[in-house]
Amino acid sequence: MTITITNLVTYDVRFPTSRTFAGSDAMHPDPDYSAAYVILQTDSPQGLEGYGLTFTIGRGTEVCVAAIRALAPLLIGRTLESITTNMAAFWRSLTSESQLRWIGPEKGVIHLATAAVVNALWDLYARVEGKSVWKLLVDMSPEQLVACIDFRYITDALTPEEALGILQRNVATRVQREAEMLQKGYPAYTTSAGWLGYSDERLRSLCREAIARGWTQFKLKVGASLQDDLRRIQIMREEIGPDRKLMVDANQVWDVNEAIAHMQALAPYHPWWIEEPTSPDDVLGHATIARAIAPIKVATGEHVQNRVIFKQLFQANAMHFCQIDACRVGGVNEILAILLMAAKFGVPVCPHAGGVGLCEYVQHLSIFDYICVSASLEDRMLEYSAHLHEHFFDPVVIEDGHYKAPLAPGYSVKMLPETLKAYAFPDGEIWRQA
Amino acid sequence: MTITITNLVTYDVRFPTSRTFAGSDAMHPDPDYSAAYVILQTDSPQGLEGYGLTFTIGRGTEVCVAAIRALAPLLIGRTLESITTNMAAFWRSLTSESQLRWIGPEKGVIHLATAAVVNALWDLYARVEGKSVWKLLVDMSPEQLVACIDFRYITDALTPEEALGILQRNVATRVQREAEMLQKGYPAYTTSAGWLGYSDERLRSLCREAIARGWTQFKLKVGASLQDDLRRIQIMREEIGPDRKLMVDANQVWDVNEAIAHMQALAPYHPWWIEEPTSPDDVLGHATIARAIAPIKVATGEHVQNRVIFKQLFQANAMHFCQIDACRVGGVNEILAILLMAAKFGVPVCPHAGGVGLCEYVQHLSIFDYICVSASLEDRMLEYSAHLHEHFFDPVVIEDGHYKAPLAPGYSVKMLPETLKAYAFPDGEIWRQA
Repeated sequence: MTITITNLVTYDVRFPTSRTFAGSDAMHPDPDYSAAYVILQTDSPQGLEGYGLTFTIGRGTEVCVAAIRALAPLLIGRTLESITTNMAAFWRSLTSESQLRWIGPEKGVIHLATAAVVNALWDLYARVEGKSVWKLLVDMSPEQLVACIDFRYITDALTPEEALGILQRNVATRVQREAEMLQKGYPAYTTSAGWLGYSDERLRSLCREAIARGWTQFKLKVGASLQDDLRRIQIMREEIGPDRKLMVDANQVWDVNEAIAHMQALAPYHPWWIEEPTSPDDVLGHATIARAIAPIKVATGEHVQNRVIFKQLFQANAMHFCQIDACRVGGVNEILAILLMAAKFGVPVCPHAGGVGLCEYVQHLSIFDYICVSASLEDRMLEYSAHLHEHFFDPVVIEDGHYKAPLAPGYSVKMLPETLKAYAFPDGEIWRQA
Repeated sequence: MTITITNLVTYDVRFPTSRTFAGSDAMHPDPDYSAAYVILQTDSPQGLEGYGLTFTIGRGTEVCVAAIRALAPLLIGRTLESITTNMAAFWRSLTSESQLRWIGPEKGVIHLATAAVVNALWDLYARVEGKSVWKLLVDMSPEQLVACIDFRYITDALTPEEALGILQRNVATRVQREAEMLQKGYPAYTTSAGWLGYSDERLRSLCREAIARGWTQFKLKVGASLQDDLRRIQIMREEIGPDRKLMVDANQVWDVNEAIAHMQALAPYHPWWIEEPTSPDDVLGHATIARAIAPIKVATGEHVQNRVIFKQLFQANAMHFCQIDACRVGGVNEILAILLMAAKFGVPVCPHAGGVGLCEYVQHLSIFDYICVSASLEDRMLEYSAHLHEHFFDPVVIEDGHYKAPLAPGYSVKMLPETLKAYAFPDGEIWRQA
């Protein structure tokens, strides 16, 4: 059956999260968690559509929507089959469009838009196959997976042959890990206790609640003043005790030398990692910080723009935890390249989540990573944040600190029609009341 | 006199250059040279306005226009004085806007838009002072110049104190270099002969014409097939002889190892530099290439997204020529940071030009660089491309292979009203005919 993409519709959807400080951090004190949302319409007799989004935090979502519209002509009129039979070429047709690439290339707004569109395409593909995206990927052969990747600019770190080798060595044992994922799910940690805008009392009570719910790994936002950070990390360490893991996250607020000084001051509270200590563009800066603050580890990735920066973070030993974002880089295809580079360089992948739809997305990526690429859960966990899941048809399910493997067809980010209506910016009822 | 910014108007202006292959290269075979153009309107009794633009190559210009509109509320209603008395804070208020930074930060579309707006602001400032932008900068004290720079993320490479020292050591001799610039102008090289889409015959005749006009330095676009590149470089070398400089430009088409192999094949024709051998994001890749192909030099910068990547290119000895672009990074303020880092690391700055308005912009930057920062013309030259200057009120003037110092107030990118009308996309008459 041939399915043709007949139209692309895009929405600016914003949630007024700044009213409660949920999601607040040192660089983003007042985010309105948002999404530039995409529906790929088709001529499928069953009315199948593809759903994707890129995550934003309020103003600027309309710019991503404009970029998605600029990409739309590259999809409309194409058959799904013409795309899926040469995925790498499809991906390059978006990222190397001869005029649009000037406004990136492969970074910022145009790449966020690429992610929304590419992920919508994978969602459609999975729905047509009647599988969740992770299962669609797991059922592909190593050759098929490698054929999804555009290796441009990374062959000095990972060749197609090396990628194939990594995937092939795990094929025989895929079935056991798939069974394990279906039974236990993927381990998670929570960020919901430690937002920067929360009071000390709220931080303390949220830690207690989270422990009661079985969480064993906690993240604290830092980067305000050193005094505040010391007081807050002390509260969290008191509440969670010496054995649970405590990660801190500066959200890019420091220069290289400030990051080193700050982390040396927090070291007595044994943070496991410092996340985003400085600019996400600063590969050499992360390497300098990593050397200076050992044994504290360095994590980054949610703002790392593409596989070329990730490649260098691996090459320079600048990052101990690779925090891919499902819609910052160019969707599933580029994620595959990054997962395989991480495996080659021996760096655990702990995806960035929270936001709008990020938890829904990354569960697929981590489950696939475990079954087909890393074959390990050591030092691996998936971020979880409690808010906004109620807006999706297939929200994540957490049990005992684990993501349950999603079984519904697609990539889990299809939004409820009433959400698209009420939270539409600026005309939805939520914003008209504001 | 207090001047308040009362409105920001933005235009999508496109020139159908793809019809002639002017500007064509390995990655951009069919550019329609374009601009997202900005006018800052004010309440000045003389009707003073500020004019800025960011250069684009066709599709996607409308996305930059959307981003400029997103930035507009940060300027409208502000007095010029409130901005110019704390330039670094103004610049950070744009680049670190708490929601908009998510769609960058400081890269791609939102940073291109920042450049258009920031440059329009400098144009307005210069018009109010009755000076060209280079003269406005040259008349600032070292302290005033340093106060224009946001040092976030670069203090590990350049502190404000070091920047001040670089500027102070040149103050006493500024006046001589200013006189020299007013008399001789700034040395240039031409890209107009070597566009990739031109036939061998056209390449040959354009080389002859350029030599007749006094050009001594030539650039050839490469990166198609090795066979084509070898044939074309041979033609250019034959025409310009052994002593004139020949630079080649691959426009990011190669992977790291491809770049090395390709340049080893072109080495017998003694290219002086290879420009953009690979991804502009690949600091470590450029360093690897630079080591492998010496004594051929490595040049890059027109697609380098911000000061953080430039910082690393300096730190890693990855770039022998720094090709700043006036509207890829965030306008004059960020350019100052990059010029000062280049001076500290001893790397000549040879700005990227051509495009729409880029020649008009960068003449100001190079003249300022010579007078106040580098104090040297050794290995320095400014790109020149012959097309589209007729659309500006104050187009560049080239004499004997030198840019004449512009004397009209402002930043030289004010477009003619008939251009804004005829080339407006999609409704201008040029596009309605298409």
